[in-house]
Amino acid sequence: MGVVVSLEDGKKQQASIQPLIALTDSDMSRVNELILSKAGSDVEMIPEVANHLISSGGKRLRPMVTLAAARMFGYGGDGHVKLATSVEFMHTATLLHDDVVDESDMRRGKKTARMIWGNQASVLVGDYLLGQAFRMMVEVGSLKALEILSSAASVIAEGEVMQLAAAKNLETTEDEYLAVIKAKTAALFSAAAEVGPVIASASKSEQAALRSYGTNLGLAFQLIDDALDYGGNARDLGKNTGDDFREGKITLPVILSYRRGTQEERLFWKAAIEDAGNDDAALEKATALMARYGAIGETISRARHFGNIARDALAPLKDTPQKNALLEVIDFCIDRVS
Amino acid sequence: MGVVVSLEDGKKQQASIQPLIALTDSDMSRVNELILSKAGSDVEMIPEVANHLISSGGKRLRPMVTLAAARMFGYGGDGHVKLATSVEFMHTATLLHDDVVDESDMRRGKKTARMIWGNQASVLVGDYLLGQAFRMMVEVGSLKALEILSSAASVIAEGEVMQLAAAKNLETTEDEYLAVIKAKTAALFSAAAEVGPVIASASKSEQAALRSYGTNLGLAFQLIDDALDYGGNARDLGKNTGDDFREGKITLPVILSYRRGTQEERLFWKAAIEDAGNDDAALEKATALMARYGAIGETISRARHFGNIARDALAPLKDTPQKNALLEVIDFCIDRVS
Repeated sequence: MGVVVSLEDGKKQQASIQPLIALTDSDMSRVNELILSKAGSDVEMIPEVANHLISSGGKRLRPMVTLAAARMFGYGGDGHVKLATSVEFMHTATLLHDDVVDESDMRRGKKTARMIWGNQASVLVGDYLLGQAFRMMVEVGSLKALEILSSAASVIAEGEVMQLAAAKNLETTEDEYLAVIKAKTAALFSAAAEVGPVIASASKSEQAALRSYGTNLGLAFQLIDDALDYGGNARDLGKNTGDDFREGKITLPVILSYRRGTQEERLFWKAAIEDAGNDDAALEKATALMARYGAIGETISRARHFGNIARDALAPLKDTPQKNALLEVIDFCIDRVS
Repeated sequence: MGVVVSLEDGKKQQASIQPLIALTDSDMSRVNELILSKAGSDVEMIPEVANHLISSGGKRLRPMVTLAAARMFGYGGDGHVKLATSVEFMHTATLLHDDVVDESDMRRGKKTARMIWGNQASVLVGDYLLGQAFRMMVEVGSLKALEILSSAASVIAEGEVMQLAAAKNLETTEDEYLAVIKAKTAALFSAAAEVGPVIASASKSEQAALRSYGTNLGLAFQLIDDALDYGGNARDLGKNTGDDFREGKITLPVILSYRRGTQEERLFWKAAIEDAGNDDAALEKATALMARYGAIGETISRARHFGNIARDALAPLKDTPQKNALLEVIDFCIDRVS
């Protein structure tokens, strides 16, 4: 294990999320039970709306990260299951609210909750899940974990507002966009990873390592998602290529193509993103412009940068199956695109 | 100009700072005059100490950035010369204070001011230059420029304190280190670039573009400096290879080597950095470990990432000699290492 192999050279076979799934398997059964029970309520609409999204087959990457991050420091208690469930509820609540804000029709290949039960139910069930998440966190009794997850909740909301403020603004710089996704996406990954060593009473530097891993994994994950939306395998994502474009979303491939484009091309982007001139012909042109300016490749190489930082964050930790599984998840997230 | 050429492919010849020097030549004569006059004082020791550092041949990159950033938006007034001088004074003040904090003997191949006139004089003359910088900014009369530069001043100080708190702490994560250099180094580059479009009354998105350019150029610049200290051409920098190591400074090459190393190697780093076991033999071992773990190459590739962001920040701006000179400076900063 002397010499470090770079990401590209070492990629002999496709990286997989399987080791993480296998390692967290029995803990995840408990998380899944807890999800079902805590999404329950006598108010019938709540479990209906919640389960619609919960059962739609997300990978549950975030709770698995929490579980592995606790176990890798020898945690033997019960709290990690509740914290992992809280993390997943925070994520689900965000998705419910996002779909309302973005007026999305489809998510993971299914109609969004708001299309079936309406916007109000989606907002309120999201709030309910957030409330349940906080109750579970409190039950765990770790003030530090509470502080981390509650800060994340407000940072995420802040990120969503930042995104709203930047919506359809093609002048958004890459730095501004990175600040948005750091808040909107990376903060939850970061908190999910950090609470593991926190409840396992690991050292400050171990907590910092997992926090940094989570942040940078989250950034890489979001950038790859952005790239996939313009050319990934649609079935893998459960959403159609071009969704971001049709919703007029500003993502890094758009920012780079816009900034690198000619004056005339910038008029096209403005018509497409700002004035909803985003039919199939426009999507085709957008994709062609991205290819011309290498915007997808550049987005992926920006993602790799963050993936490399996540990798180095974990480097000093003792070799454990959990550490290796978490490292493989970095490549898994990035390889989705190839 | 249709297709974007990546940094590596397009590097037919060594990038140069000459176009920026040529473009700002006559403005810089005025900056240099102003530097000499504003560093003057009836208190004889002040010009002595100030001029010792001022005349020691820095590149004056920051004030040139301010001048070019103002001119590229057609600024026709006088204020940019004062702001550029303020920026250089802020930089000089930081260096004077840094040398005291770091107990440095040499800077740019000369004895540091503190070795000749003592720590107290270095601190106070730094304060004097900061004061003069603020007076010049106020004279320009742009509240927005004042706000940008005064915020930068406090962010820089904050960065120095962060660095002090992280000093000799090998557990510092890459994220934490990036936060330090973003404050300590990139904030001044960012402010230097942003005040140009601000006094030229350029648009908000033009201001944001230059701000982002400055931030990311500053990050790239600092990371390349870090790499150079372990193997660049010593004469170019006017400081000896290994200075950072001998001062026990935590920089990215050290962070990466430490994180990627074995348990035994980490003990070596602790002895070297934390307990000052940093003689020539230790430096040789440190350099060998960096080579083994690709820490210098990785530091450079992290720098390139920020260089690419700086490049894309300027991409949408109209083609002007100033823009092209600023773009070339990115490559110039990174090419120093090769």
